[in-house]
Amino acid sequence: MSTQIPRPTPPRIAVVCIGDELVEGRTIDTNSGAIGALAVASGWKVAEIVTIPDEPGLVESTVERLAERHDWIVTTGGLGPTEDDRTRAAIAAAVGRPLRADAGAEARLRARAAARGVEVTALSLRQSLVPRGARVYASEVGTADPFAADGDGFTVICFPGVPRELRALAPVVLRAELPAGDVRHRLEAVYLGERESLLSERIEALRLPTGVGVTYAPSSPTVTIGVVGPDLGDVERADAQLATALAAWRLPLGAKTAAEAVVTAFTARGWTLATAESCSGGLVAAGIVDIAGASAVLDRGWITYANSAKVDELGVAADAIAVHGAVSAVVAAQMAAGARRVAGVDAAVSVTGVAGPGGGTAVSPVGTVFLAVATERSCVVADARFVGLDRQQFRAASAALAHRLLLAAVGGDYDALRSYRGVRELHFVP
Amino acid sequence: MSTQIPRPTPPRIAVVCIGDELVEGRTIDTNSGAIGALAVASGWKVAEIVTIPDEPGLVESTVERLAERHDWIVTTGGLGPTEDDRTRAAIAAAVGRPLRADAGAEARLRARAAARGVEVTALSLRQSLVPRGARVYASEVGTADPFAADGDGFTVICFPGVPRELRALAPVVLRAELPAGDVRHRLEAVYLGERESLLSERIEALRLPTGVGVTYAPSSPTVTIGVVGPDLGDVERADAQLATALAAWRLPLGAKTAAEAVVTAFTARGWTLATAESCSGGLVAAGIVDIAGASAVLDRGWITYANSAKVDELGVAADAIAVHGAVSAVVAAQMAAGARRVAGVDAAVSVTGVAGPGGGTAVSPVGTVFLAVATERSCVVADARFVGLDRQQFRAASAALAHRLLLAAVGGDYDALRSYRGVRELHFVP
Repeated sequence: MSTQIPRPTPPRIAVVCIGDELVEGRTIDTNSGAIGALAVASGWKVAEIVTIPDEPGLVESTVERLAERHDWIVTTGGLGPTEDDRTRAAIAAAVGRPLRADAGAEARLRARAAARGVEVTALSLRQSLVPRGARVYASEVGTADPFAADGDGFTVICFPGVPRELRALAPVVLRAELPAGDVRHRLEAVYLGERESLLSERIEALRLPTGVGVTYAPSSPTVTIGVVGPDLGDVERADAQLATALAAWRLPLGAKTAAEAVVTAFTARGWTLATAESCSGGLVAAGIVDIAGASAVLDRGWITYANSAKVDELGVAADAIAVHGAVSAVVAAQMAAGARRVAGVDAAVSVTGVAGPGGGTAVSPVGTVFLAVATERSCVVADARFVGLDRQQFRAASAALAHRLLLAAVGGDYDALRSYRGVRELHFVP
Repeated sequence: MSTQIPRPTPPRIAVVCIGDELVEGRTIDTNSGAIGALAVASGWKVAEIVTIPDEPGLVESTVERLAERHDWIVTTGGLGPTEDDRTRAAIAAAVGRPLRADAGAEARLRARAAARGVEVTALSLRQSLVPRGARVYASEVGTADPFAADGDGFTVICFPGVPRELRALAPVVLRAELPAGDVRHRLEAVYLGERESLLSERIEALRLPTGVGVTYAPSSPTVTIGVVGPDLGDVERADAQLATALAAWRLPLGAKTAAEAVVTAFTARGWTLATAESCSGGLVAAGIVDIAGASAVLDRGWITYANSAKVDELGVAADAIAVHGAVSAVVAAQMAAGARRVAGVDAAVSVTGVAGPGGGTAVSPVGTVFLAVATERSCVVADARFVGLDRQQFRAASAALAHRLLLAAVGGDYDALRSYRGVRELHFVP
């Protein structure tokens, strides 16, 4: 069946996602991402993703146009039994072959109906139609079988649009249809506490091995930076250069967030944790609880939003609030020390700040936040100011800094935090 | 600046999403969906979405190809300062105009740097470059200003790829650049506690006025449902039909989340609030603190993750935990009652459940959660089970249900919660 013309290496794939709900923003497409991730892992490359509505004629014209530039076209969606499922006929037209019922697919549809004790309907049987000569792959997760059909110098591979079905079927079908790809090596790490543009300036100043590329994926407040190339040794050397040059902002390998690194480090050390939050309102604890295994680490937390709660629950001195204000280094330190004492844990972290839009003062404008970590050894207060963030971003940035402080506390080394964006001062309280 | 050739009505837009992380499946694109939903709401139509990697030459060739079929091309991504941000130069080439620094954009970059007390870098100033004659829109949410540039018979509108920035900027810029679509009236409300597919089945069973369309925008755990049509009276009648048929799941008008409705209702009533969370780990409080004005409502909260914390902080009976388990109606009720008593507030809500992946038992499998609301009048316990959710989704669903219970407590009417997806029973504790 396969055509004899030479095809590019690594295989370049175009993906076509079909559905009104996708272009109208009612459903977020995750299928193309699943295919893209599979492609990277297998040394293939997704060259283009095209998303189109269920309009008559559009699937056919889109596939024909893509076939001029690409040799493999993967479609998702439009294989169901209803009238707006137009993919089967469109692909038959694009590859220039008539639709035929596939005997295996038809038998599976009949068997499924029988197992449910219902008659198979003509509508349902539409799902056995494929372009003549197509290779059909039996689906065990749904009623629409994926299939591959060869056109003139190109191959179309069609999947159902249900994400669960696609994720189950795509690895098997794509491996069967596509030739082996180029192996590329990739190492990536997550960075926190500096802007993407400034991290990238530092990387551009490095002399990385030739052939190694750098990729950036910001996901506020972190940036994932990857090094990619054909030679593993070069990629490892480049990663080591980044690790050294960006040490202050790099999270431990494998951690996607500072909270994940905290759970790993506390678990390894056998430490327990308590949180005392004001402006972050529970985000510090929620970030920890997000990680499976948090129960071995987190003992308890407080959201002491009202001043009286800081006094009642954590033993903060009412005088300290009156003299220094609730948003102050003194109150942050007392919150952390109080949380550690009341919970009887190894480490406690506190956050108190002005999230805005109201509540700012000349001394503590919106964006000001004080954080403290109390351990047996010390209490360290970070005085930070985040500028230009809205209420949600400010709270997320404050929570991430709280996690980063906890990570520093495990090693007892806070130096990297002096380079952390927004941190103005670190105090060591005896 | 605008070209004189006739353009189609309603305007048909092609969207180009740019980024290696998108085609490699590391980031899921939500920008095209945001533009698609905005288009539907404004009477425009997204005809095609093309997603491409950051390859030299590719943005330019893609825009040129799309310009043959479409009159408006919206791009997202590639406006940042780093080397793999190639959109500015590509669009300049596609529209046939040289890149020039925009004076306003440059002034904003310099002012932002000055406000932070840092030198503006040459790299950062790349973000002021636009095709000569482009219309630049000042961004107040990021460093990359969106801009629009006219080519030969087409217009390209470029947005930064950061979803938060795109969502803030797109409505204003697209309204300024695109002609009015078909004028349509739209009313929308947010629904919580039932799946989109089942809400849609109920709506399909209604006889809505002809010409009125229904749009769905799920944003787990809520679904925003809009009614749209050319006649305002018809749209209002349709909205009233939805309000009646879906009353159990509809949030008060104007509230985007249950937490927002809680802050509004508690503020109106002059009520104060405390939270006591186990599995949700701070998300119930964080949802409240998310809303500006929360400080008038939220007094304090606890994350009582360890059993000892439930006993120490909230006065839960150690016996109750030993007999019924920490995930039980009895413990949920004691947590809420204890939180209300200790904080001295009008209402307290509690959450205790099994988020998984471990920790499930035969009686309380993963997905089981008990919630309680204590007020002066009563303590109501909801026994719920969320099936098929991962750890994060389960915790978000539990927090949303906690907010919904608080909303019910203000009116003292819990009936709607019997139709809430996952709620198995409501107990009234004397």
